[in-house]
Amino acid sequence: MTREEILARVDHTLLKPEARWEDIRKICDEAVENHTASICINPCYVRRAAEYLDGRVPVCTVIGFPLGATSTQAKIEETKQALLDGAQEFDMVINIGALKAGELDDVEQEIRALKQTVGDKILKVIVETCLLTQQEKETMCEIVPRAGADFIKTSTGFSTGGATFEDIALFARCVKGRCRIKAAGGIRTAEDMEEFIRLGADRLGTSSAIKILGEK
Amino acid sequence: MTREEILARVDHTLLKPEARWEDIRKICDEAVENHTASICINPCYVRRAAEYLDGRVPVCTVIGFPLGATSTQAKIEETKQALLDGAQEFDMVINIGALKAGELDDVEQEIRALKQTVGDKILKVIVETCLLTQQEKETMCEIVPRAGADFIKTSTGFSTGGATFEDIALFARCVKGRCRIKAAGGIRTAEDMEEFIRLGADRLGTSSAIKILGEK
Repeated sequence: MTREEILARVDHTLLKPEARWEDIRKICDEAVENHTASICINPCYVRRAAEYLDGRVPVCTVIGFPLGATSTQAKIEETKQALLDGAQEFDMVINIGALKAGELDDVEQEIRALKQTVGDKILKVIVETCLLTQQEKETMCEIVPRAGADFIKTSTGFSTGGATFEDIALFARCVKGRCRIKAAGGIRTAEDMEEFIRLGADRLGTSSAIKILGEK
Repeated sequence: MTREEILARVDHTLLKPEARWEDIRKICDEAVENHTASICINPCYVRRAAEYLDGRVPVCTVIGFPLGATSTQAKIEETKQALLDGAQEFDMVINIGALKAGELDDVEQEIRALKQTVGDKILKVIVETCLLTQQEKETMCEIVPRAGADFIKTSTGFSTGGATFEDIALFARCVKGRCRIKAAGGIRTAEDMEEFIRLGADRLGTSSAIKILGEK
């Protein structure tokens, strides 16, 4: 797999809360230079990044991140503002406690409401695999595509673990092409990137891709 | 200091993203039983907790939590929804990257906007001390009271460190009574609780107070 084929699947990511605009601008420049799929940044920088990039690379942002435990209405309003600010992709975190309590209709309706809000823009759904049982992961592989989302995504990178080969293989087996798959969290070698893609990941969320694969 | 005097200053806290309503209800019951200052929970549970508690203990929630890196508008909308849902105290996280970039007007205006939104309800401002320099901490001791907030608070409990005695002493020295002080993150012994209060903390955020001090 070529460097370009991998980078075309990378959401070039910087979500640290202490990141300054200067740091985000650097991510923007690297993404343009290296043709990544998007940049993935916090909502507070979406407007500036979208203006700065001016369509050269899509801006992806995060919603209800990283706990997923805000109200559905707050997630909707955060999404609306990010849309206004110029985001084209939205990585939301599910309500994990609701999933664990078996409140599955609430989990599904929240995803559906966010997909309605973003319309034809891309919605990715972070399920935070490290906190879930096998059964809960399988349940989310049913709910995410049924709610109309575009991607199921493993991890925020802010919890107790990141993407694993097992989980990407599980997603591929369970979603059966009904939605796409994003691996994120702890991806730090070129070999891992290739293996995640081989197992079925259409996107990789990582801050290290350009460093690992070398500047163009 | 008596058990009751300490508990009257405790925001009884459960912010884990995997917490179920059943877990939150237990926190509510413990708070009523032990007369804590409030319960501190994620926004998705505010409505249910407020209905369940029916005024017996105030509900505190978190805004832009834990990264503080969402848009100001999203923080305002999240606050409005939590107000509607019945929250009486609001622990917001500042935009840390903006502080680090010296965009101090933006940091202050965001706090001011949230205070305007909550009106006479309590606004606490989390500055995430573990990510800040000494100078940045002192700057926030000026900005937080000037923006009209009710408390300056050390930590989210989700970053690289929690409250320290040094930081509470620094806050006390710098805010000079212009706002109150909340210590949070990693508070796990009765001795620490007493020392934080002695140094100037009016509130303590912890999930362990009742366990440590013993059920009534």
